[in-house]
Amino acid sequence: MAPNASRLHAGVDLGGTKIAVSLWKEAGEEAPCLLGEPERWETLPGGPRRNLDLMVGAAERLLARHGEGRSLSSIGISGGGPLNPATGEILSVPNLPGWVSVPITRILSERLQAPARLENDANACAAAEWLYGAGRGATHMAFLTCSTGIGAGLILDGRLYRGSRFLAGEVGHQVIVPDGLPCGCGKRGCLEAYASGAGIASRLKPLREKNPRVPATAQELVEAAKAGDWLAVEVLRETAEYLAMGLANLIYILDLDRIVLGTIPTAAGDLFFGPLRDALLRRLWPEFRRGIDLRPSALWPGLGDYAALAVARDLPRLLGEGSG
Amino acid sequence: MAPNASRLHAGVDLGGTKIAVSLWKEAGEEAPCLLGEPERWETLPGGPRRNLDLMVGAAERLLARHGEGRSLSSIGISGGGPLNPATGEILSVPNLPGWVSVPITRILSERLQAPARLENDANACAAAEWLYGAGRGATHMAFLTCSTGIGAGLILDGRLYRGSRFLAGEVGHQVIVPDGLPCGCGKRGCLEAYASGAGIASRLKPLREKNPRVPATAQELVEAAKAGDWLAVEVLRETAEYLAMGLANLIYILDLDRIVLGTIPTAAGDLFFGPLRDALLRRLWPEFRRGIDLRPSALWPGLGDYAALAVARDLPRLLGEGSG
Repeated sequence: MAPNASRLHAGVDLGGTKIAVSLWKEAGEEAPCLLGEPERWETLPGGPRRNLDLMVGAAERLLARHGEGRSLSSIGISGGGPLNPATGEILSVPNLPGWVSVPITRILSERLQAPARLENDANACAAAEWLYGAGRGATHMAFLTCSTGIGAGLILDGRLYRGSRFLAGEVGHQVIVPDGLPCGCGKRGCLEAYASGAGIASRLKPLREKNPRVPATAQELVEAAKAGDWLAVEVLRETAEYLAMGLANLIYILDLDRIVLGTIPTAAGDLFFGPLRDALLRRLWPEFRRGIDLRPSALWPGLGDYAALAVARDLPRLLGEGSG
Repeated sequence: MAPNASRLHAGVDLGGTKIAVSLWKEAGEEAPCLLGEPERWETLPGGPRRNLDLMVGAAERLLARHGEGRSLSSIGISGGGPLNPATGEILSVPNLPGWVSVPITRILSERLQAPARLENDANACAAAEWLYGAGRGATHMAFLTCSTGIGAGLILDGRLYRGSRFLAGEVGHQVIVPDGLPCGCGKRGCLEAYASGAGIASRLKPLREKNPRVPATAQELVEAAKAGDWLAVEVLRETAEYLAMGLANLIYILDLDRIVLGTIPTAAGDLFFGPLRDALLRRLWPEFRRGIDLRPSALWPGLGDYAALAVARDLPRLLGEGSG
């Protein structure tokens, strides 16, 4: 793909509670650069219509202010809920009534006059880190979201791997403890029930019942650990042990050369990555230890915007569908 | 690849204790067919030299008897021990002294005057089932050996997936029970420690100490279960539960549409596949339940020969390296 300095891309980061629209410009060999500040808002209630109007309006405003009269080359939507990337439909958004079978690529494409593509956010974030961030240079990579839940995007043999029904990467729902803690998904013992934001909060709950000064959330836990609280450091270390169990399984199965971790580990930094590396190396055969590279997200907290950009600009190429 | 009825392929199935050499002929749109009976022998002690002579001799004999004067188009070696498919070297063969860094593709290629390729047996078996057997028509498939150990070959997006150091597919060494049974690999709680032939034998051991009529091996267990022994049926059902734990993890991570199982499950048949399907479906979300297709090997017990054929004939194509 020849870089073309005049190409502009719009990104829509469609989370569970927030929406952001960003505008990007090609920058030669470098990663594209943001034009202006992304527009962000809390998802408006009452279904998709007003939110779609806001998306179109935000893209048009950014384009009018920063586009120097050029039109959009592509639109990318990175979505958090169930969606169908083949048809470009949002199937639903958890906790948001009215978002049912929304043909978002068709709508945005018609109203903004550019081709639009849709992808799930874990895959889109993996693509973004691989193209512009902590995944550069890797060939076999997993990106794990590590936020409220744990999802993953997989780059295998240099291509985005989506599985047979676009469901690949449910790494958080491998079972690491048989009959273990209940998971939000209905199963027991999933990695997500231990090492996600929700899992950390549920592991903190019994400690907090004994001592109300114990943090309630993963974010509070990270802050307490950074402030030197020994119990917080210990809970973080234990979280790293659980996550290492899941990552080791992933490495034995896929022989990865890079793993990039999202929100919570990136926010915690070395306090988390130190114990995580130790725990992971202990679980790996020597031949797997060599060359596995574990990194925090390089794009966080702007990762969601880069994810939408990657969908707009690079998705066909990442799927091996020609030169994009 | 245009089928070419005159092309001949030689296969070498290099196991831990046995070697087999087979000769194959293209059969138009159908899978190639065997020419004569493969020559088989117990690996001769004293290093590779005499065994390599036997391989060359066997191929030349088969060619002289059945080749109708034609020469070989390709040679494939499917190997059980540590090997490097990129350099075509056998690195070692467990329990066989003298097999150290054997450049087997160079040797066989020079002596038999045809290009030779080397691949690990789990990958080669996956390729064979996918091309000629129970994997036909699948796009995202795992083949699990389920013999003494549990290894896997992965066909992802219609290509053989080998990982960053040719180590992908160590599915048997995902941990399904933290701090569980000791595994031959030195870790604890690996799937292989429960559901492989070795794992089954070690689970039978304490039962056998109480009752000497309890089977000692997986093979005896399958025979006893087929003869109606209720304890054998129960141990088989328990084995299916453990295997289902590993398969479910694999499906959550890779969103497969087909899983093909090798030796022990194939020998046990419905006595094993019934409980395995039940246990697997119980562990899967509804969206994964639809469309996951679990099958016994269709090529067993001749799978090793087909695996060597697949390496000879189809490996470049399976790796996405042009039209082969």
